[in-house]
Amino acid sequence: MVDRGPRARMVFSAAQLIRRDGVTATGMRDVVLHAEAPRGSLQHYFPGGKEQLVNEAVQWGGWYASNRIGRFVAGMSRPSPRKLFAAMAGQWIEEFRTIGFHSGCPVAAATIDCAHSADSTRDAAAAAFASWRVATAGALTDMGVAARKANSLATLMISTLEGAVLMARAEQNVRALTVAVRELGPLLDGYVGEAG
Amino acid sequence: MVDRGPRARMVFSAAQLIRRDGVTATGMRDVVLHAEAPRGSLQHYFPGGKEQLVNEAVQWGGWYASNRIGRFVAGMSRPSPRKLFAAMAGQWIEEFRTIGFHSGCPVAAATIDCAHSADSTRDAAAAAFASWRVATAGALTDMGVAARKANSLATLMISTLEGAVLMARAEQNVRALTVAVRELGPLLDGYVGEAG
Repeated sequence: MVDRGPRARMVFSAAQLIRRDGVTATGMRDVVLHAEAPRGSLQHYFPGGKEQLVNEAVQWGGWYASNRIGRFVAGMSRPSPRKLFAAMAGQWIEEFRTIGFHSGCPVAAATIDCAHSADSTRDAAAAAFASWRVATAGALTDMGVAARKANSLATLMISTLEGAVLMARAEQNVRALTVAVRELGPLLDGYVGEAG
Repeated sequence: MVDRGPRARMVFSAAQLIRRDGVTATGMRDVVLHAEAPRGSLQHYFPGGKEQLVNEAVQWGGWYASNRIGRFVAGMSRPSPRKLFAAMAGQWIEEFRTIGFHSGCPVAAATIDCAHSADSTRDAAAAAFASWRVATAGALTDMGVAARKANSLATLMISTLEGAVLMARAEQNVRALTVAVRELGPLLDGYVGEAG
């Protein structure tokens, strides 16, 4: 946070508030306060108002999730699809266990709250899912999964992760995430080295 | 709808608006209008206000999803876990293709919007997921899945379905759902008849 300017801090803060309270309940003033930004800066940096800020927060969420994929793989001595999925779920398990179940995924929140009401936000959510999927599928092909299969498996991994995060927050229990890792892991590794 | 009294109509309408717009954006007046209920009836039937109405809508969602499990299985000549999951996803695919991607799952929406802010709603969402999981796991054990495995597979099915519904709404495309059915189906059927 230290080196970020007010604009980047506001996008980051919006993402944090959206993933905790949803889009509708996140007010522009809350974002300014959370970001410790000057009051007038909101209108200056986001002339498109809340919708622009929300869309950039969703975009940030997609960038963050995509970026993590490469970092997860870089940290593995022998990368595998199972280990990648375990790392993706593991980050949520870690957050839930240490900080609590306060917050979920900002892209999911934007989809739930805005898919019907704001086309530009729905587009931003679709783009975030797409970049996350492309990053995940790319990592899978690097591990030896056939290209035509990698996109499907990446979609399955992200779907299952999103649903498990939801269920974990409702239940205040990481069980849905540990089950997902245990059950999907062998399936994912089963496609390594298959003929493309 | 024809035979329902105003109370049941308001719970149903609340669920419909919540799954389209989220909890925060759903106003009490919108519910009364949607339900074509008398203005004063809201306070009469729901003295606990919006939180009570939302919680009952979430409970309705859990009841509906649980109830569908038995109906899906009853409609199959030779029930299998793969067919059950295909039916669960198929209902969403059908809705998205015929009505559009306007609405998702009310339990997911309640979790996203209220997990941090309203304990009673989070509890209602957890209870809804639990009853859905129990119904699904029961159907799986009836098909020959070992009892200790059935609960995990039911959790996986619901997680994956919830995430795929989210992604489908963002992308305005049922692909995430068809991928989930194709990829998870063989895994699910692999546990039929395994030693418990």
